[in-house]
Amino acid sequence: MSQNQAVKTTEVLLLGPGPSNSFPGVLQAMSEPALSHLDSDFLKIMDEVKENLQYLFRTISPHTYIVSGPGSLGMETCFVNLIEHGDKIITCQNGFFGDRMHENAKRYGAEIVQVKADWGKPIALKDVEEAFVAHPDTKLLSVVSAETSTGVKNDVEGIAKIAKRHGALVIVDAVTALGAIPLEVDKWGLDAVYSCSQKGVGCVAGMAPVTFSESAFEKVINRNTPVPSWFQDVTVYDKYWETAAKRPYHHTAPSQQYYGILAALRHIKSVGIENLWQQHEEVSAYFADEMEKRGWNFFVEKTYRLPQLNTMLLPEGFDDVQGRTKLRGEYQIEVGAGLGAMAGKLWRIGIMGANVNKATIDKFLQAIDKL
Amino acid sequence: MSQNQAVKTTEVLLLGPGPSNSFPGVLQAMSEPALSHLDSDFLKIMDEVKENLQYLFRTISPHTYIVSGPGSLGMETCFVNLIEHGDKIITCQNGFFGDRMHENAKRYGAEIVQVKADWGKPIALKDVEEAFVAHPDTKLLSVVSAETSTGVKNDVEGIAKIAKRHGALVIVDAVTALGAIPLEVDKWGLDAVYSCSQKGVGCVAGMAPVTFSESAFEKVINRNTPVPSWFQDVTVYDKYWETAAKRPYHHTAPSQQYYGILAALRHIKSVGIENLWQQHEEVSAYFADEMEKRGWNFFVEKTYRLPQLNTMLLPEGFDDVQGRTKLRGEYQIEVGAGLGAMAGKLWRIGIMGANVNKATIDKFLQAIDKL
Repeated sequence: MSQNQAVKTTEVLLLGPGPSNSFPGVLQAMSEPALSHLDSDFLKIMDEVKENLQYLFRTISPHTYIVSGPGSLGMETCFVNLIEHGDKIITCQNGFFGDRMHENAKRYGAEIVQVKADWGKPIALKDVEEAFVAHPDTKLLSVVSAETSTGVKNDVEGIAKIAKRHGALVIVDAVTALGAIPLEVDKWGLDAVYSCSQKGVGCVAGMAPVTFSESAFEKVINRNTPVPSWFQDVTVYDKYWETAAKRPYHHTAPSQQYYGILAALRHIKSVGIENLWQQHEEVSAYFADEMEKRGWNFFVEKTYRLPQLNTMLLPEGFDDVQGRTKLRGEYQIEVGAGLGAMAGKLWRIGIMGANVNKATIDKFLQAIDKL
Repeated sequence: MSQNQAVKTTEVLLLGPGPSNSFPGVLQAMSEPALSHLDSDFLKIMDEVKENLQYLFRTISPHTYIVSGPGSLGMETCFVNLIEHGDKIITCQNGFFGDRMHENAKRYGAEIVQVKADWGKPIALKDVEEAFVAHPDTKLLSVVSAETSTGVKNDVEGIAKIAKRHGALVIVDAVTALGAIPLEVDKWGLDAVYSCSQKGVGCVAGMAPVTFSESAFEKVINRNTPVPSWFQDVTVYDKYWETAAKRPYHHTAPSQQYYGILAALRHIKSVGIENLWQQHEEVSAYFADEMEKRGWNFFVEKTYRLPQLNTMLLPEGFDDVQGRTKLRGEYQIEVGAGLGAMAGKLWRIGIMGANVNKATIDKFLQAIDKL
């Protein structure tokens, strides 16, 4: 290939809501030679990915794997499998991604009860309790753990406890949560959890780690109607990922992507998941101190603020677009703009993946000081 | 990262039904730094990918893009958008992938008329004509261009002509066809075509190039019910890929994958698509001669045989598993086993992507001669 055909990109410090910069070894792994999806060496890679995902999700569920598509497809996989037409679901909505879960539930014909909170506030446990009391026939509940649009942490543990008490299955969006803040799939009794690869997991974008509990899996097996998606039907997908068993062909796995996430997952295991959570806390606290010294304030109250996704109100007179353009153009740093009603009012600053260290924060602060 | 954490794989000559080895520049591109899905540099990459896909599909349709998932998801995207419950569809089935199209149609509640041919034979045009005459209310037809399970080429041009005459939209599986044999989306009037990235397109696995005609797109816009998939709804997806327009966030694009396919598409453009088709013909003819000299026979008759996917009957007394194991273990060469009733009876030998040259065939022949 001639030089001018080569695809080259710039190294950008990715401090937006995601993608974040990846862990060491990921990009190298992505350029390793392709193996076929049925090659015995590749099956070993899938087995190790699965085992590491169980570690990351804190689950022993065998129904734990990568959906070969972005986090949004992971969301869809949970909804398309678990909802049958007319099933009643409580959708918790306090941001853009809670709304997208609602949109998914709607597309599959669910009967929906919405529990809402304002952007910037968490879902109130009492509202969830009340919704269940008013709708005792509810079969499912959906909630976002770390709401990427606002920087708010929902109390997934508390919400799941209520849902369990009322006999409902719990679907959790862990897109911005996984690898960054505590998420205890088995201990909290979460039934269907999806995430992405390019944030706390420290890989590049394109994959959706998912896990299903036995109860969730049984609900799928006992559906009255087939899952209205062949590709995402977990009863089929499951066999493809069944360790040490006859693995029927399902689709051609994106081999380089699996190499990449394996490199990231090995890194996570070597650091230790609890240490990783701790690092997010510490680095975020340092970041918060430094930003507050500079006159920046948080949009979200400290008690339910995410360490990995900081929504910071723009100081009086600060120009949003000019600031982001200069950061990207002169310092190769990306931060995220506000969404919806918060556009122009705040920045979303992500500290995830390879960026969870003070040296990265210092690099950002030096740039901010020159804006 | 420590040395023992690095993910390393072996270089294998991939002569199975796919993945094939990728074009020069692809693996290097995959290890370029991540860019955000809304970064202006990244949007330029998406624009160039789209333009090159139009070139590859031989279409000017603006509804041409990458679905961020494997070819199987591309299949689903076509069906989930175009089928409404009760729509009548003719599904052409003469192999594993025609059957999978049928399975997709069924999941979305279509009323199905099956037109079948035996494995190893093409769909007969007169059967298609008869099906339309018997079912004049048919709205859709689906057919596989290059049936990966058998090595048979269906007459997509002829079948599409019949479907058009009867006012039906045509869905085409071009997974093993695109980049390898003539496929004329606009000239033949194809309405929804999907492919994959890891075969004739010469990239690695994980992406599904798709294209929709204006008629197909209008059918989606005029649906009575919403598309039962938020992620795959082309009316939403379309805006994400709209060149030079305000591009709303849809999902986080798998940046490395798009770099990889851009490298492959640039290569294809530099060679020229018609030259590429010609190369497949020539190299396959050389391969066929050499194999026949060695006593191997084709499963499929020459008139409807695919140059890029050769199904070859195992010579008398030849041990399938032992042969493949030795090829992979001693020579790092992969070929594909037979599927279904053809298991143990034939090999599927793909000559696609970077492998379409006589030097590669010679390497394979040398190994075969030593088995």
